[in-house]
Amino acid sequence: MAKQLFQKPKGTADLLPGDSIKWHYVEETARLLFSDYQYAEVRTPIFENFDIFARSAGDTSDVVTKEMYDFKDKGDRHIALRPEGTAGVVRAFVENKLYGPEHVKPYKLFYIGPMFRYERPQAGRMRQFHQIGVEALGSESPALDAEVIAMAVDFFQTLGIANLKVKVNSLGDQESRENYRQALINFLQPHFDELSHDSQERLEKNPLRVLDSKDVKDQEIVADAPSILDYLTDDAQQHWQKVQQYLDALGIDYEVDATVVRGLDYYNHTIFEVMTQAKALGHGWSTITGGGRYNGLVSQFGGPEMAGVGFGIGLERLMLLLESENSPLPTANNLDVYVANQGDNTDVTAMQMVQAIRSFGYSADRDYEDRKLKAQFKTANRLNARYMITIGERELAEQSANIKNMTTGKELTVKLVELYTNLPDYVTDAEENEEQ
Amino acid sequence: MAKQLFQKPKGTADLLPGDSIKWHYVEETARLLFSDYQYAEVRTPIFENFDIFARSAGDTSDVVTKEMYDFKDKGDRHIALRPEGTAGVVRAFVENKLYGPEHVKPYKLFYIGPMFRYERPQAGRMRQFHQIGVEALGSESPALDAEVIAMAVDFFQTLGIANLKVKVNSLGDQESRENYRQALINFLQPHFDELSHDSQERLEKNPLRVLDSKDVKDQEIVADAPSILDYLTDDAQQHWQKVQQYLDALGIDYEVDATVVRGLDYYNHTIFEVMTQAKALGHGWSTITGGGRYNGLVSQFGGPEMAGVGFGIGLERLMLLLESENSPLPTANNLDVYVANQGDNTDVTAMQMVQAIRSFGYSADRDYEDRKLKAQFKTANRLNARYMITIGERELAEQSANIKNMTTGKELTVKLVELYTNLPDYVTDAEENEEQ
Repeated sequence: MAKQLFQKPKGTADLLPGDSIKWHYVEETARLLFSDYQYAEVRTPIFENFDIFARSAGDTSDVVTKEMYDFKDKGDRHIALRPEGTAGVVRAFVENKLYGPEHVKPYKLFYIGPMFRYERPQAGRMRQFHQIGVEALGSESPALDAEVIAMAVDFFQTLGIANLKVKVNSLGDQESRENYRQALINFLQPHFDELSHDSQERLEKNPLRVLDSKDVKDQEIVADAPSILDYLTDDAQQHWQKVQQYLDALGIDYEVDATVVRGLDYYNHTIFEVMTQAKALGHGWSTITGGGRYNGLVSQFGGPEMAGVGFGIGLERLMLLLESENSPLPTANNLDVYVANQGDNTDVTAMQMVQAIRSFGYSADRDYEDRKLKAQFKTANRLNARYMITIGERELAEQSANIKNMTTGKELTVKLVELYTNLPDYVTDAEENEEQ
Repeated sequence: MAKQLFQKPKGTADLLPGDSIKWHYVEETARLLFSDYQYAEVRTPIFENFDIFARSAGDTSDVVTKEMYDFKDKGDRHIALRPEGTAGVVRAFVENKLYGPEHVKPYKLFYIGPMFRYERPQAGRMRQFHQIGVEALGSESPALDAEVIAMAVDFFQTLGIANLKVKVNSLGDQESRENYRQALINFLQPHFDELSHDSQERLEKNPLRVLDSKDVKDQEIVADAPSILDYLTDDAQQHWQKVQQYLDALGIDYEVDATVVRGLDYYNHTIFEVMTQAKALGHGWSTITGGGRYNGLVSQFGGPEMAGVGFGIGLERLMLLLESENSPLPTANNLDVYVANQGDNTDVTAMQMVQAIRSFGYSADRDYEDRKLKAQFKTANRLNARYMITIGERELAEQSANIKNMTTGKELTVKLVELYTNLPDYVTDAEENEEQ
């Protein structure tokens, strides 16, 4: 086997124990918080039919044109690893008829899982990356827009990220957007030669995307562009006012920014980004989640006219942020008791002891290699064991064991039968002592 | 878009809220239990270089020849969606140098996630399926074989599966296996014409697999075949005796069955299966996990000579089993409080109330569609809300709300400020009343 065969594919990562425990903590924080908001988990397949993603992302999206992991399966079906979460969730919503009246609306869903884009790997941008996202389907209420934004903010605050900025904007309904699109083209056309190549390409296809160009010269030009907020229809304006009222009522500190447009074509009405300042994510303010309304997507997937709103959070960037901000994250599995043994036949007793401790719901481990006691003590220390139980030949003869509180150093000799039946007395009491 | 585009790919499933909560419960049960045994989570990529799976599975495996989801990526790399968990974990163990002396051995890992095989979909067999697995690397101790078996049994018992049978066997070391292989070929050769087509093919390539043929005639023939246990070298015999001693010491009820061989080529020494009887899984005893030792795999991936032992559990089959056996599984997210409102300006107060309840760590929801109170009460019932808070115009004027215990029917009128500051008094007290 050539050397490169033993390596993970480019742009993927192995999540090892010291990190996986942190990821799991963040994921469980999301689960608990989202379920307080009555969002429930949905798991859609890792791959879907190619067209599911191609059509929903829109024609101008780079995801479709260059970055999809798509291939033909052995049955010659054109399938693709999912590049994002929303399309699959909406497909599942429609295919499983969750739009039916027997389901309470909005139907609130969250997902956690891997996504795939074939792009140049860089810090925080992987070919296999991971997202936490939510989608609330079947309600046009502006209160839901506000709730979704509040939930995103609540999630980051729960994780200890204090320095947040919320930017909101409205793209209005289809009529608003068409009116604005034309106004924007009229404004940009005279500057065509000054625009970046990307923006020139986007001008006719999707001029709104010129607004969030990263090019400095582009940004100077669009600073004077008309604002979409001046082109909202009465209905769209009413929705937009309500969203802001509700955000005010919830005490969410937000900023209206008409240049926020998001990359995807399917958004309408409210769109938003939550940003933070952290060196780990680059200079200035960095977006840590974005989302918005997509009222046309359910019908585009063959469902009824039914609204949707949601957001997605990239886990790689979030973990980078949490690590760099010294947010409190778990670092390793607890080891409650390490059982050391030495001498003939003590290994069987040690094994039974370990198993008995686990059956009480404590974590326990031992030496499997018949190493000397000194080496075992060293391992108990390295694993940060809270207690150590030692069984030698003398203890075995007396059917007893030595139990040591590794924090206080206190030791006790206890009958085995007593440990087997009343273990929590010894472990819990000592734990309380530690806390004093 | 043609109709079929709105459907999930053949052999995949959408896991919707009523089911995802059960899956998550089973996964968390595994996490908690495995961490008592000091196994920590590893997450390897969804796809790997094709050869990682091709070489580790061995030449005769159907997985390689027909069932892999393999394709060329946009950089012309031959990659494959992982068909099983062990190869990726061992690759990660080697690539991340976890074999180094700075890591305590055995290095104990578990994984939970999706796997992919292109096979004909049937009940409990999906193209995207899911496994929970464990791998303990870096120890040859027979105590570890016993622990791994004990942990599998503990896991199923924790989930409420009572009716278990444990089958163990030893394939010995390489020398034992080669000696036996020849003896088995010598025995089967005279019966060649009576064997099934599959078994005839396997006879030269991997005669051990003839032992677990599902063909009735094959089974009659192999009933008189020599037993591998008679061909173990002294070392292998000693390991095997120790495993049985430890299993006895742990009180594991097991059966030695020399026809258990497992499908994969990389096993040696102890192999085992845990079986149960359940109609949902077919007639008679069905295997719900299998595993064993694979002492050659780490070096095959470029690491040092280092032993491994593990098992894998198919989640689809396990969920089928738990559902059919009426094991206790959660069915839906709890809703602690439903907030109903009617009248001018009550929606903002209702929204603030919902958000305040969530900030106490309770789950709460409300109506987003300005429906009549009666419709909201109906929804509160349908969602099984434990409490309902109602805010009408009169309550708003008095800055109070009505809180109703949905189990006892008891109602109270409480000042809003009191609910905002002391909510747990109202929710928890009433909960305690329910429990009396």
